[in-house]
Amino acid sequence: MRKIYVIGIGAGDPDHLTLQAAKAIGRTDVFFLLDKGEAKDSMIELRRRLMKAYAKPSRRIAEAADPSRDRAPQDYEGTVADWRHRRSAVTEALISEHLMDGETGSFLVWGDPSLYDSTIAILDEILTRGQTLFEYEVIPGISSVSALAAKHKIGLNRVGQPFQVTTGRRLAEGWPEGVPDVVVMLDAQQAFTAHPEAEIHWGAYVGTPDEILRSGQVSEVADEILKTRAAARAQHGWIMDTYLLRRPD
Amino acid sequence: MRKIYVIGIGAGDPDHLTLQAAKAIGRTDVFFLLDKGEAKDSMIELRRRLMKAYAKPSRRIAEAADPSRDRAPQDYEGTVADWRHRRSAVTEALISEHLMDGETGSFLVWGDPSLYDSTIAILDEILTRGQTLFEYEVIPGISSVSALAAKHKIGLNRVGQPFQVTTGRRLAEGWPEGVPDVVVMLDAQQAFTAHPEAEIHWGAYVGTPDEILRSGQVSEVADEILKTRAAARAQHGWIMDTYLLRRPD
Repeated sequence: MRKIYVIGIGAGDPDHLTLQAAKAIGRTDVFFLLDKGEAKDSMIELRRRLMKAYAKPSRRIAEAADPSRDRAPQDYEGTVADWRHRRSAVTEALISEHLMDGETGSFLVWGDPSLYDSTIAILDEILTRGQTLFEYEVIPGISSVSALAAKHKIGLNRVGQPFQVTTGRRLAEGWPEGVPDVVVMLDAQQAFTAHPEAEIHWGAYVGTPDEILRSGQVSEVADEILKTRAAARAQHGWIMDTYLLRRPD
Repeated sequence: MRKIYVIGIGAGDPDHLTLQAAKAIGRTDVFFLLDKGEAKDSMIELRRRLMKAYAKPSRRIAEAADPSRDRAPQDYEGTVADWRHRRSAVTEALISEHLMDGETGSFLVWGDPSLYDSTIAILDEILTRGQTLFEYEVIPGISSVSALAAKHKIGLNRVGQPFQVTTGRRLAEGWPEGVPDVVVMLDAQQAFTAHPEAEIHWGAYVGTPDEILRSGQVSEVADEILKTRAAARAQHGWIMDTYLLRRPD
């Protein structure tokens, strides 16, 4: 039987790695990489560094190009589903060609595999097709949300209160019902600017040497965040940012 | 200056510990423990095991009794706020008596310090009073939510969708508006039973040798979860459980 690990490697700081993840990396024969073809150098560098530190010298790397995807589609769910199918086909080919019976393969996932990541869904889709068989295990990682909260030294929830985790697209449709606090991921449109009265705790590249943190009332810090974000994105060629929006009591 | 770490130690599995957390434990002169006076042996045992593995031999332990708290209060927020004040007084006394200038103290927090934990708020309250000074840093940990999702091999969100993290008390007031998926913590009343059509992914003592996992449609698995939960609670003297509720598409 083939074995696959989906390993959460944390949000950018190499020391976010858990002992469980380091051990799984050490048991891995083949690392699967989907190359996004973007200038996400520090992500690739982190994976390389973790493999160098914890993987066995005989480990192999099986790489393929990540299928391209429309980043601002009309039909978001449909586009993502289609992209996932193409991705699962590429992934299945990687597994069936490179992972031998009895071997262990791993996907190194940024942050935590349970949060806005498609690796689990892709493996389930491959298993459902039934052509390529394996067992797999998920190893949790420090999410960008936990890393953000830690750096800002804040709780995500207020006492006994709920909070919502959502996307920039959803927040742009309005503040969600019934929650005083909202964690926003994947926000390409800076939807926070529509809520000047809220408090924001924003972070980009959290946990990496390029980390940028900003906090304050949106009305006071929004302009600076927009400028800082645009400049950082231009400099690095990509940006990964997350924020917590907190409504006044 | 005194330095304090608030260290997330993960959800029960000693291998959930991050390298960052292990290093912080290694730099700690004094560990602060608030003894809950309950039979949470496996929690105490995990802390002891991590200190033994990663702390320096000269480390000290400063312990105090955790103030008691009404677990089913009429006024939840008020009761928690009052408990937090009493807790911060006890914590402040521990810090000022046991942590010398130039030393480092640590709180070992179950799961992730940003999720339904009061340590950060308590330290902020002490600093606001201004009598006991220190700097502090938060080290993120694997939350019980990430651990649950990993064991069930599920994502917390569906593609492009939000999810809410809430408490059993809140869920008992009704399914939250606008979210197909809900993560429930601190549920003493098994509020999921009111949603027979939902899919539940439930776990108790996740990551420990006592781990119990159950999944299925609530109408089919609720009775078994209730029985299993009651039996486990009676056996261990306490229970820590979490679940994801997923509405059908």
